[in-house]
Amino acid sequence: MNKEKVLEQVQAALTEHRYTHTLGVRDTAVRLAQMYGADVERAAWAAIIHDYAKFRSKEEMADIIKNEGMDTAFVTYGGELLHAPAGAVLAREELGVKDEAILEAVVWHTTGKPGMTVLEKVLFLADYIEPNRRFPGVEDVRAQADEDLDEAVCTALGNTITFLIKKRQPVFEKTLAAYNELILA
Amino acid sequence: MNKEKVLEQVQAALTEHRYTHTLGVRDTAVRLAQMYGADVERAAWAAIIHDYAKFRSKEEMADIIKNEGMDTAFVTYGGELLHAPAGAVLAREELGVKDEAILEAVVWHTTGKPGMTVLEKVLFLADYIEPNRRFPGVEDVRAQADEDLDEAVCTALGNTITFLIKKRQPVFEKTLAAYNELILA
Repeated sequence: MNKEKVLEQVQAALTEHRYTHTLGVRDTAVRLAQMYGADVERAAWAAIIHDYAKFRSKEEMADIIKNEGMDTAFVTYGGELLHAPAGAVLAREELGVKDEAILEAVVWHTTGKPGMTVLEKVLFLADYIEPNRRFPGVEDVRAQADEDLDEAVCTALGNTITFLIKKRQPVFEKTLAAYNELILA
Repeated sequence: MNKEKVLEQVQAALTEHRYTHTLGVRDTAVRLAQMYGADVERAAWAAIIHDYAKFRSKEEMADIIKNEGMDTAFVTYGGELLHAPAGAVLAREELGVKDEAILEAVVWHTTGKPGMTVLEKVLFLADYIEPNRRFPGVEDVRAQADEDLDEAVCTALGNTITFLIKKRQPVFEKTLAAYNELILA
């Protein structure tokens, strides 16, 4: 795979704002992978492609999830979740990314799930804390990310659940299961 | 069943504070049952016995839950959950309450679950809003309880989840499933 060529394809699929975010996630994922012993190349690749499907239509993404036999809860629990699993499928088909560890990290980057690999945690967390992110609580998670990967992931999962409940939106149940797994560890 | 005699047994098992709470839950449950069409007698009984096990030892309660083959998640997810399922068992054995609809309402009064009956919702909500309760957000749920049972139950479930996450405690997964069911309805 040619990283520069794929970056161009990703850039063409995103807004400038979302591409800037993607580069922030890449740099943060590389740093976290170095700190916590994930494969640095895989972390960079996962970050580069993680939002590739962000601007596809909800209908296209929902169809991909159903046709691939992926967890239909991604479709039930709100439009913001679709681009992660659909993006993994489209990255394989359109960007030529075949590495399953990378693609699985993309699938779970928005929701998390129990039993995440270090690579999956790194992408989830990098997406949450990259330097362009501005929202209440992000500074606390950034500080935790420098100390303890699981603690930072757990806080990010908890914040995500709390944020959705405050907006009276449904919460993907594997997100809570991931939080519980880390709290009970 | 003699309600006065059972009330005396309940009073003997509780602190004064907890008995006052129980009477508040009873009055609120009766009112909610009248408003939303649950069986008023069952609502009163469920409220009277709902905290019967509150001051048993955690060990005794955990043993009851395991011996009865009840959901062991009640044991995993924190000591505050034990008295609800254990209380249903002890109310059957020691207080002579045989009505399954009443006992099931007791089992789920702390956590909620998906597919709650109106009686189960009434007890869950009455426990949350009875007049002696004082905590942030309770007034909003009281106001909702006068308008829409499901909306009030949903808010109480969401507040419970948010409260536990803020304290970095595990969250019983059926509580989130109950919240999601009402949000997605």
